[in-house]
Amino acid sequence: MKKAVVIGEILVEIMADRTDQSFLEAGSFQGPYPSGAPAIFIDQLAKMKVPSAILSGVGEDDFGTLCLNRLKEDGVDTSLVKRVREKATGVAFVRYNSDGSRNFIYHIDNAACGTTTRADLASLNYESIGTFHIMGSSIFNREMYEVHRQVLRDLPKECTISFDPNVRPEILQKDPLLSELMQEFFGRSALVFITEEELEFLTSADSLKESLEICFDKGIETVVLKRGEEGASLYTRDKEFHQPPLKVEAVDPTGAGDTFAGAFLGAWLKEWPLENCLKAANAAGASAVSKRGPMEGTISLDKIEEALRPGF
Amino acid sequence: MKKAVVIGEILVEIMADRTDQSFLEAGSFQGPYPSGAPAIFIDQLAKMKVPSAILSGVGEDDFGTLCLNRLKEDGVDTSLVKRVREKATGVAFVRYNSDGSRNFIYHIDNAACGTTTRADLASLNYESIGTFHIMGSSIFNREMYEVHRQVLRDLPKECTISFDPNVRPEILQKDPLLSELMQEFFGRSALVFITEEELEFLTSADSLKESLEICFDKGIETVVLKRGEEGASLYTRDKEFHQPPLKVEAVDPTGAGDTFAGAFLGAWLKEWPLENCLKAANAAGASAVSKRGPMEGTISLDKIEEALRPGF
Repeated sequence: MKKAVVIGEILVEIMADRTDQSFLEAGSFQGPYPSGAPAIFIDQLAKMKVPSAILSGVGEDDFGTLCLNRLKEDGVDTSLVKRVREKATGVAFVRYNSDGSRNFIYHIDNAACGTTTRADLASLNYESIGTFHIMGSSIFNREMYEVHRQVLRDLPKECTISFDPNVRPEILQKDPLLSELMQEFFGRSALVFITEEELEFLTSADSLKESLEICFDKGIETVVLKRGEEGASLYTRDKEFHQPPLKVEAVDPTGAGDTFAGAFLGAWLKEWPLENCLKAANAAGASAVSKRGPMEGTISLDKIEEALRPGF
Repeated sequence: MKKAVVIGEILVEIMADRTDQSFLEAGSFQGPYPSGAPAIFIDQLAKMKVPSAILSGVGEDDFGTLCLNRLKEDGVDTSLVKRVREKATGVAFVRYNSDGSRNFIYHIDNAACGTTTRADLASLNYESIGTFHIMGSSIFNREMYEVHRQVLRDLPKECTISFDPNVRPEILQKDPLLSELMQEFFGRSALVFITEEELEFLTSADSLKESLEICFDKGIETVVLKRGEEGASLYTRDKEFHQPPLKVEAVDPTGAGDTFAGAFLGAWLKEWPLENCLKAANAAGASAVSKRGPMEGTISLDKIEEALRPGF
């Protein structure tokens, strides 16, 4: 199988201990936990035994070593991750509110993972890439925009593109350039992971049915709809499947969507039946929310196969 | 009394809970604590009831608000601190080793406090400045170098310069430009806070006596020698005083030198007898090491005066 590649941030997360803990006074935090949406995604994909690589940057510091160690351990090819001397590894502080919302303070764009430029693409061997995953949240600066545009230009036509916008529509509305790029990604993707809100925004349609028609007309084969607490659905031009969420105690939602997408893509590339791809993704997402730390809940292929056995 | 001003980093510190805790795995941390050497210094100086201001930048985030609230509460004029939209407030992670050493990972140069440029000096009213303090550790990039050179050029001649190199000689040896700038600061200062190692490096002398002669010949009035666990000494051309350290349980050494210098300068500007300036600094340094958190141990003028009473 050819390699799957993603480009984007690797960082550590520092989590507030208590719900409703303030960033305005000293308190207890837990960390560093390896994190970054594309990093979590690729970690889960590698655990599916799909050859997987991430192009990024980390600092020459222990936080960077921690992230690289974890990714390597889980089977990710980290040879495209540069160690950056001048900048430390990215950091995100997160705190949870009792209404379910989260607040972040982060060093990403200005950290080691924000130093990726088009020059770094010279280390990509395009012929070895079978799948390129676009994580919309990784378009965090103008150069990341250009990086992704160039990759799309230079990737062989037969390369599969999967895409997770992972950006709130209100951000897209404020940034016409980003919105336009998202449209471009959208038009090139075989597989998209998306919320209903994102889907309606990107297709400018009023109903799910209409949105899906537009997707299929654009050439998208498979639309995976993330419905959060209502589970997930999958649509192709002639099939659909629905999965309720697995019942687990939700400890930490961060990274669940990325884990979900990594597991789905892995199963999809292995050409599992579509319904099983959705079940695999669901099992991975459930594992992710049940563990504290954004990448702590990625799940082995064995465990996913176990979850798929009849009667589970 | 005219204002005392310092330019440099404001950041939050995140402290590892345990001695010898690793940055390579998840653990408990405490924070955010307001920090940054010049910020700690100016906080203590303001507590000495000297009009005090810092020129810096913090993010438009809770960490920045926390730092500004603390500085304002303690009497620092923060009108020269800009809120930076694009970058988060600086962060330093610190862990302590059982051999007494510390390790840091930080976002400073690339954070909000690293965005200070010569353009920000337009907001300085030079005529209102009586004392300018140079914190050597704040020369963390080329622009901070230029900022400090320009301030020295534009400050009225009668302005008092106090100077704390706060940079390890091995760093100076590797950076001839910084070393040259330190020499320039040194030649302009009325008051320096310095370790014996820094003093010998900056004067290229072989003995303390010779170093001090060179200082006085350059026009430095008062040399305050920081001897760490052996206390502190003060030298002028015709006087010297020595103070053993106060006996306190050392909980956290970070920020003690900056607190020491802030208290000394405050007493010195109030024209206290030199011996009392040294005692005030000592009391402040002792308070700093006894509290967890770099700025938590700054001490009120009342408490310093109490510590100076006979029999204390």
